[in-house]
Amino acid sequence: MPIAPSALAFIPFVSVANMMRLVHHCGIEQVLLELTDVVEEDFRRWDMFEKTPRLASHSTHGVIELMPTSNGETFSFKYVNGHPSNSAKGLQTVTAFGLLAKVDSGYPLMLTEMTLLTALRTAATSAMAARHLAPPNSKVMAIIGNGAQAEFQALAMKAVVGIEEVRLYDIDAKATQKTIRNLNSSGLRVVACSSAQEAVRGAQIVTTCTADKAYATILSDNMVGSGIHINAIGGDCPGKTELHSDILIRARTFVEFEPQTRIEGEIQQMDPAYPVTEFWEVLENSEKGRRNPSEITLFDSVGFAIEDFSALRYIYGKLEGTNFFEQIDLLADPDDPRDLYGMLQRAAA
Amino acid sequence: MPIAPSALAFIPFVSVANMMRLVHHCGIEQVLLELTDVVEEDFRRWDMFEKTPRLASHSTHGVIELMPTSNGETFSFKYVNGHPSNSAKGLQTVTAFGLLAKVDSGYPLMLTEMTLLTALRTAATSAMAARHLAPPNSKVMAIIGNGAQAEFQALAMKAVVGIEEVRLYDIDAKATQKTIRNLNSSGLRVVACSSAQEAVRGAQIVTTCTADKAYATILSDNMVGSGIHINAIGGDCPGKTELHSDILIRARTFVEFEPQTRIEGEIQQMDPAYPVTEFWEVLENSEKGRRNPSEITLFDSVGFAIEDFSALRYIYGKLEGTNFFEQIDLLADPDDPRDLYGMLQRAAA
Repeated sequence: MPIAPSALAFIPFVSVANMMRLVHHCGIEQVLLELTDVVEEDFRRWDMFEKTPRLASHSTHGVIELMPTSNGETFSFKYVNGHPSNSAKGLQTVTAFGLLAKVDSGYPLMLTEMTLLTALRTAATSAMAARHLAPPNSKVMAIIGNGAQAEFQALAMKAVVGIEEVRLYDIDAKATQKTIRNLNSSGLRVVACSSAQEAVRGAQIVTTCTADKAYATILSDNMVGSGIHINAIGGDCPGKTELHSDILIRARTFVEFEPQTRIEGEIQQMDPAYPVTEFWEVLENSEKGRRNPSEITLFDSVGFAIEDFSALRYIYGKLEGTNFFEQIDLLADPDDPRDLYGMLQRAAA
Repeated sequence: MPIAPSALAFIPFVSVANMMRLVHHCGIEQVLLELTDVVEEDFRRWDMFEKTPRLASHSTHGVIELMPTSNGETFSFKYVNGHPSNSAKGLQTVTAFGLLAKVDSGYPLMLTEMTLLTALRTAATSAMAARHLAPPNSKVMAIIGNGAQAEFQALAMKAVVGIEEVRLYDIDAKATQKTIRNLNSSGLRVVACSSAQEAVRGAQIVTTCTADKAYATILSDNMVGSGIHINAIGGDCPGKTELHSDILIRARTFVEFEPQTRIEGEIQQMDPAYPVTEFWEVLENSEKGRRNPSEITLFDSVGFAIEDFSALRYIYGKLEGTNFFEQIDLLADPDDPRDLYGMLQRAAA
């Protein structure tokens, strides 16, 4: 007689539909605010985490990556792809899902979509860095590259830093129009610009998040005035950068995890001796953040496994008592752990 | 107005319950036979695969591993834990799940339980090696360690190699009783033995699959007669071995992927110069398998990502036209790939 799986066999699964319901239930700016705090909490206990550059499988079309980490109690990993050519095929450039698990038993705790969640955590991480590095009372930001990340960046900087005006530029005007439409009722003043140069005018924060897999110069040195904070998101894999190296020479550069950023970030253009500060050191006060009003700060963000860990534990913490998940039967759970075959056999009838 | 997810958002998910249904539908020995052929097919095109030692997160209780590979067209990975202490807590020592994805888009193709599937592919891999390395017309096998893997090993050796008698030993007599019960109607002659020495008597194939995370001597040199094939399954992580090193000195040793086995297999006891043959070389005829009747052959099996790839593509190939899966909404699929936020926003209503 077939035996129904035990409670141990099931883990909560957060589908895309449920993630959207959860985000709307909490409010997107509230989610971005809370997530920024959770990411910062984990950056403040940086030493506790197992850190390894992500495991990447590169092909001519893109990359598939596994990004694991652990704080000794909880293990997490994210599966994420990056395929710039997907967009032309009507597919997402980046899709992702992730998992939390208990270190002491190895049993999974939760499986979730992470395409939306990665967009949220990337924006939250940018906002975390900006609130420590951008000029005080920053009100204007520029976003160059108005793709899937643009609105999340704008709303996180509004919620966390207090940005009031967003200046948009993309080589494709349709992308900018899409972003304007989406930010219509956000309370932000949104300005469409006809060049990157025009977009950065008056901005205290400049976010670059273009998608081309190429060495590109989205920002050239003459466009970058003193005192601004650059949030460089799009230079995030080998062969893909957005900033002219002259900007890097003038800037003080902050990174997530140096060994990974040397390979994947803007600083792949630079000599290995080019100095960088890991951002957690700013939180720990062992390194200074912004030192003076004229300094150019650069957050060379490539995305790191600990940010996904934060995002996963944040969502896991939201699930209890809600119906924003389904239970899926992912784990074999025989009555006697040694009797896996017996479990299979009893299901035959 | 909320918009139902598009077809692109869904991937098939094979739960434990559905995996059991699928295996019974096909017949377990038939599955083991077919899977052995699929694993062998992939070992024969070894060069095509991306090979990397698995990414392991070790803790005091056990290990969580990610095992990715790719043949350039299809990517796969398995999540698997190994926690010997789980058994005492009523949990599985090993649980697993896995994923297939398309390399050209990075989009997942299928998610599936792999606790059962790993047991099947491990037995199929053992059977593949045995049919090339064991003495011709082997009829008797010993299984030392009668845990979750035992029945799968016995049935695979029956289906693929033609084994007729299985001799069982475990330090815990209950484990042996469980295995006898499960193999009751298998058509195998099953003999319970009171020592490892008794179990190996007359056996052409000796499988060791104990679970202790320790350097152990399940087989000592005096127990191993000439001409047998040893299938060593349980020595599969650093600090965990089953064979006395004297046996290794006498045996010709075959491995899956040398860099991983040097760290995790029985040969971790040996000098780095200890000679081994990667098993694919036997299939390719660049190395000989069994050379004479008196040779002791040893398959030092630790489990490799390509075997999981084979198992995943085998199951994926079985799904079409069946109902052995559910569709889960794992991928965000906006109408316009750049408009992830718009998708989220439209779900608010």
